Amino acid sequence: MTATDDLLRNAEAYAQRFDKHELPAPPARRVAVLACMDARLAPMRLLGLQEGDAHVIRNAGGVVSDDAIRSLAISQNLMGTREIVVIQHTGCGMLMPTDDHMRRKLKEAIGEEPAWPLHTFSDLEHSVRETVDRLHRTPFIPHKGSIRGFVYEVETGKLREVT
Amino acid sequence: MTATDDLLRNAEAYAQRFDKHELPAPPARRVAVLACMDARLAPMRLLGLQEGDAHVIRNAGGVVSDDAIRSLAISQNLMGTREIVVIQHTGCGMLMPTDDHMRRKLKEAIGEEPAWPLHTFSDLEHSVRETVDRLHRTPFIPHKGSIRGFVYEVETGKLREVT
Repeated sequence: MTATDDLLRNAEAYAQRFDKHELPAPPARRVAVLACMDARLAPMRLLGLQEGDAHVIRNAGGVVSDDAIRSLAISQNLMGTREIVVIQHTGCGMLMPTDDHMRRKLKEAIGEEPAWPLHTFSDLEHSVRETVDRLHRTPFIPHKGSIRGFVYEVETGKLREVT
Repeated sequence: MTATDDLLRNAEAYAQRFDKHELPAPPARRVAVLACMDARLAPMRLLGLQEGDAHVIRNAGGVVSDDAIRSLAISQNLMGTREIVVIQHTGCGMLMPTDDHMRRKLKEAIGEEPAWPLHTFSDLEHSVRETVDRLHRTPFIPHKGSIRGFVYEVETGKLREVT
C-alpha cells in the first residue's frame, strides 16, 4: 500500500461528491497564480479559489522559468486571464547563497550535474520583486496591469504583499 | 477592485483560521504531484492533500518540461519524496495537432514567436504514458518505484489511471 493508493481513495470520494460538470476552460476569475511547489502552501485554499476560477502554475521556488512563461503566455493569450498573483514563501528550500550550492548538492545525490538553471535565491523579498520585474519585461505576457508579488508566511498562514 | 483584491480578502480569512504553525518542509506523504495548471483541476482537493503533505508542480499540460524535471529533482533529492503522481485531463487546451498550431496562435496574439517548446499533445492517453516514460528515463529522478499516470475527467470529477 503506497501513499498514492491512499490518495486514490480520496479521489474516489471527490468524484462521488462532484457537482461541477460543465465548467468552461477559461478561468472564471481571469487570474493566473504562480507559486512555489512547497507542501505547506495551498494556493487554492489560501486564496479561496474554487474549481474553474484560476490557473495555478507551480514550480520549485515559484520562479519565472521558461516553462512558467510558456504557461502564463498560454494562460493570457489563449485562455483570457488578465491578472497574475506571484507567491513565494518563508522557509523556502530555494533560499541558497548561489545556484552552485544547489548544483553541488544535486551532484552529490545523483552523480550527474544538471545543466539547467536552478533558480535559487538568497533574499526572499528581492526574489519576489525580481520575479514580478521579469514578468513585466517578457513580451509573451501582454496584460501587465495587475502583476502583484507576495510572501506567504508558513509560520503564520499570512500572505504579505511585497510589490 | 480587481479579482486579486477579492482573493486577498480570502487570504486574510485563511490566516485567521490557520493552525499549522510548525510544519516541516519535507512533504509528510513523500509524494510529488505533476499536474496541469487548468482551473477546473484542484489537485490537493482531488487527492485529499492537506498542507504539508505533498509537493505540487503545475504547468500548462502537466508535462515534463526542463523546469518540471528541475522541480522533481529537488523534490526527490533534497526533500525526500519517493512517489510521483502525474495528472493530465480531458478538455485540455494543450490538445493540438502539433506545436506549430499553438506557435502560430501565440504569434497572432503577441506578434512574437516563442522559441521554447510548447509541449502540445494530440492524444491524451498517449501523452500521459509519454510523460511517465520521460520521468523513468531522466537520471535526475532516482526514485522510480511509484510513478503513476492519470487522466482527470473534468466532466465527471473522476481520476482514471492510464499507466
